[in-house]
Amino acid sequence: MVDGESTTARLLITCPDQPGIISAVSTFLYHHGANITDFDQHSSESQDGKFFLRLEFQTPGLDCSLDALERNFRARVAAEYEMDWRLTYARDKKRMAILVSKHDHALMELLWRTMRGDLAATIPMVISNHEDLRGEVERFGIPYHHVPVTSENKADAYAQMVSLLEGKVDVIVLARYMQILTPDFVSHFPHQIINIHHSFLPAFVGANPYLQAWEKGVKLIGATSHYVTDDLDQGPIIEQNVQRVSHRHSAADLKSLGQDVERSVLLRAVKWHLEDRVIVDGTKTVVFVK
Amino acid sequence: MVDGESTTARLLITCPDQPGIISAVSTFLYHHGANITDFDQHSSESQDGKFFLRLEFQTPGLDCSLDALERNFRARVAAEYEMDWRLTYARDKKRMAILVSKHDHALMELLWRTMRGDLAATIPMVISNHEDLRGEVERFGIPYHHVPVTSENKADAYAQMVSLLEGKVDVIVLARYMQILTPDFVSHFPHQIINIHHSFLPAFVGANPYLQAWEKGVKLIGATSHYVTDDLDQGPIIEQNVQRVSHRHSAADLKSLGQDVERSVLLRAVKWHLEDRVIVDGTKTVVFVK
Amino acid sequence: MVDGESTTARLLITCPDQPGIISAVSTFLYHHGANITDFDQHSSESQDGKFFLRLEFQTPGLDCSLDALERNFRARVAAEYEMDWRLTYARDKKRMAILVSKHDHALMELLWRTMRGDLAATIPMVISNHEDLRGEVERFGIPYHHVPVTSENKADAYAQMVSLLEGKVDVIVLARYMQILTPDFVSHFPHQIINIHHSFLPAFVGANPYLQAWEKGVKLIGATSHYVTDDLDQGPIIEQNVQRVSHRHSAADLKSLGQDVERSVLLRAVKWHLEDRVIVDGTKTVVFVK
Amino acid sequence: MVDGESTTARLLITCPDQPGIISAVSTFLYHHGANITDFDQHSSESQDGKFFLRLEFQTPGLDCSLDALERNFRARVAAEYEMDWRLTYARDKKRMAILVSKHDHALMELLWRTMRGDLAATIPMVISNHEDLRGEVERFGIPYHHVPVTSENKADAYAQMVSLLEGKVDVIVLARYMQILTPDFVSHFPHQIINIHHSFLPAFVGANPYLQAWEKGVKLIGATSHYVTDDLDQGPIIEQNVQRVSHRHSAADLKSLGQDVERSVLLRAVKWHLEDRVIVDGTKTVVFVK
Repeated sequence: MVDGESTTARLLITCPDQPGIISAVSTFLYHHGANITDFDQHSSESQDGKFFLRLEFQTPGLDCSLDALERNFRARVAAEYEMDWRLTYARDKKRMAILVSKHDHALMELLWRTMRGDLAATIPMVISNHEDLRGEVERFGIPYHHVPVTSENKADAYAQMVSLLEGKVDVIVLARYMQILTPDFVSHFPHQIINIHHSFLPAFVGANPYLQAWEKGVKLIGATSHYVTDDLDQGPIIEQNVQRVSHRHSAADLKSLGQDVERSVLLRAVKWHLEDRVIVDGTKTVVFVK
Repeated sequence: MVDGESTTARLLITCPDQPGIISAVSTFLYHHGANITDFDQHSSESQDGKFFLRLEFQTPGLDCSLDALERNFRARVAAEYEMDWRLTYARDKKRMAILVSKHDHALMELLWRTMRGDLAATIPMVISNHEDLRGEVERFGIPYHHVPVTSENKADAYAQMVSLLEGKVDVIVLARYMQILTPDFVSHFPHQIINIHHSFLPAFVGANPYLQAWEKGVKLIGATSHYVTDDLDQGPIIEQNVQRVSHRHSAADLKSLGQDVERSVLLRAVKWHLEDRVIVDGTKTVVFVK
Repeated sequence: MVDGESTTARLLITCPDQPGIISAVSTFLYHHGANITDFDQHSSESQDGKFFLRLEFQTPGLDCSLDALERNFRARVAAEYEMDWRLTYARDKKRMAILVSKHDHALMELLWRTMRGDLAATIPMVISNHEDLRGEVERFGIPYHHVPVTSENKADAYAQMVSLLEGKVDVIVLARYMQILTPDFVSHFPHQIINIHHSFLPAFVGANPYLQAWEKGVKLIGATSHYVTDDLDQGPIIEQNVQRVSHRHSAADLKSLGQDVERSVLLRAVKWHLEDRVIVDGTKTVVFVK
Repeated sequence: MVDGESTTARLLITCPDQPGIISAVSTFLYHHGANITDFDQHSSESQDGKFFLRLEFQTPGLDCSLDALERNFRARVAAEYEMDWRLTYARDKKRMAILVSKHDHALMELLWRTMRGDLAATIPMVISNHEDLRGEVERFGIPYHHVPVTSENKADAYAQMVSLLEGKVDVIVLARYMQILTPDFVSHFPHQIINIHHSFLPAFVGANPYLQAWEKGVKLIGATSHYVTDDLDQGPIIEQNVQRVSHRHSAADLKSLGQDVERSVLLRAVKWHLEDRVIVDGTKTVVFVK
């Protein structure tokens, strides 16, 4: 955490690529007294592609209110270039809900890192379909909601979860939540739900991927963090990583080593989302890492 | 290459696991004056599994001929424990044929590493379904056979290749050979054909995996080296590795970065095979790496 | 944790290399009904070097008591080959003390992993020269001893710590303990103290290595876990790892990223020590990893 | 290689940071019809630091000659912001000389990658203090100059090399050239000489680093590519990487594994230099990787 953080704003832009965008954006900000301190740009093609931009600027020298700045930017710049854009402020920590079942490794990492200030978030609630982890969560002073999900009550359960979450949180992290979300639930939180899949997608889609990997005799196992869409295990990938294994490792070893990878991959994906470093581009992501 | 290499023998054993095997093997070798200098063992289960062993011993102190040693080992040790075993000598370099189409990166690495003595092999021939790489190969003084393969002549072409290869080589490396081998061809060389697949199997099986990977937006690409069986892209995996990529990389970039991974993964797999470090265990491998 | 663990014994041997050792050890165990389930051997030279062995065997079929087995092994095998050896049992968890100052990342990982059963240890105490982390530790039900260390009281403080630790613990882990141990303290616990050094030794020995690394403009930072000897930062290395960084990372970023590496490197080193996978060989280690 | 490459220009800028630079540069280019297709920026501090920029633009739509563009940029933009800047064109391949002694691994990789078009360079000459590699080099049709260096002829030898190189090459790569360059030689080619050091600097500075690493018992070995300055082994680092090793590896193994790392690290550093991705910032580098 740097001192200047409370004055840092982030502007993210997606639009059809054409000459002049960088000039238009940077000149607008300069004229309003914004000091750009980080600027990362990507064009998907050299011609007729998409333009992606993430920049950070400092607000103290602004010659107008933030509201006025946003209003003007919309009218003078964004409209002309048909921009999909958002402006966020580092001081506004995102509200992050965590959904979990029984595995605690990913949950604990998120709780502990948030408590330490490594993740720029608040955690208004944890929701689980089991009671097992209540103690661990409440120890951090965080409300724990037990919402059992069965094949009979599925629609009701997810309706209950929507009512708990909607308007109360900015992002939902599935920290090994072992239930399949309903399309209705997903539709309430577009590009706001982050999952950790315990395999190196698209290999070993579905259940028990470590056993699948062990039976296949792979030499590396991995984990994938992605946004959740209706298409199970197919949402835009944010981050992946792998771990070397050998014939000496049992399926149980793979699961244990895999949990370490899951933990670190999910942490990075969540951190990048919280810092507004990820732009979804259809079925893929643009991730402006440091 | 160490001085003692000309006197190094390697014993590889697979058999049903039971108590006493290590004692029987090591005592037999000790009594015959063999000095064990490397010993690596694996049991697939703690009970009723399979036993795998690779050991190296030095031959100068042997009290009998190598023939006699093998004969006695078969009679006194291998039979009792129902061993599948082989005894090889580091001074007997394996004869390695290379099959290639038009990509030169994997071929060149194999040729160059063999010439330098990094790979313990001789290369009696390179076979290609194209003429493109003849100059590169003949520059090394290695015979180049052009065997075109079409849908019409497929059976004849592979029969011609069998007659070129059978009895002349110990291992066949597919260094980006883009034709699908016939089951008949494969059946002549069981666990003797090594392929490099340009993806991280089992993800992106089949054609053009880098384009598949790019379309999927993965954050890591990889390569897999495996033994060839009738089941395309499904043979026992020897080695895999990955390379980090981002949204900045085009499908062409992925292909280019991927070729570096292919090259190094294939090199390691071939090296391990040549040093008798790989035992095939059904659909998997046991790889005793240094 | 596997079912059979309560019956697993581990035998570690160091001795001058000569023919016949493997035969002698494995035959002795076989004759006593011990079933060898893992066997990993290393010779430091092909001739006249040192011999290192780690094996696991199962005890249920033993024809004598463990005491008798040890007595016989000493008399019949170890003496003849001048072995330095130890026999341990997986069911006897090692007692691990943790020394810490103010950084909590390495401490929390050790506490949490031990609580989950990932580390085969009990933690009888944590000692710190500060009060800061008392709450975190006592929450786990573990006694926390505050032993302030100043230049004036140094001898007394370490004498107090020896009296707290001696005979009560099997291993001492320095989880970012920022005081330099006295030679007298170190001499009480030979090869029983594990440190995590926040740099990739031998680069950046001494204080504030992340700042040193940042000033030098390195592209990778790392961490090193080693046994503590009198020679500061020079004890036998158990494990190291690195993390890629770039010009975008400040010295503070390097410190933050480095803490993740420290945490995972220390965890692996401690785990291997607890599982008797490490043999110290003078100024180096032999680590029989899975 | 992409189609558009022949029309790609690259602008690299270093200057004191202040608001308005991005606006000034991008607006200037926009007004002249340059289409920016890649833009990567870095500020060393959030306030009063240095500003670094690398951007690519396409030249077909320019409303003036390249000469006029450069002249105008100098007068209208660079002067005001006190910029240190350069403008290069992808179609102008850099002329790369290679200096080598007897090890061929790094040399061969550079020759082969340049021949394939993976490196955007021409190679007007190779210079060596030995005759050993003449055949390998001349096979590629590249002139090979043998300039022996002894303690007696050192000044003359380097004077001869300056006369061979000066004005004929844009970059000099030391591909395991085992002589220490004279300060006079270095002064002719500031930030134009790239070395590969066979260790993970700043560990194991000086001679025989692999033996040093083996004696220290490290668990990772590495290589470092850096610009050459008068301060031996201390120039700005461009790239580093490591390779895991264990007690099983001899000093000779470390050297062999290390050569693979050297080869790939040097390749990346040279590639980035040739693509104008590296800006030297005092004793460090800013590397705008893809």
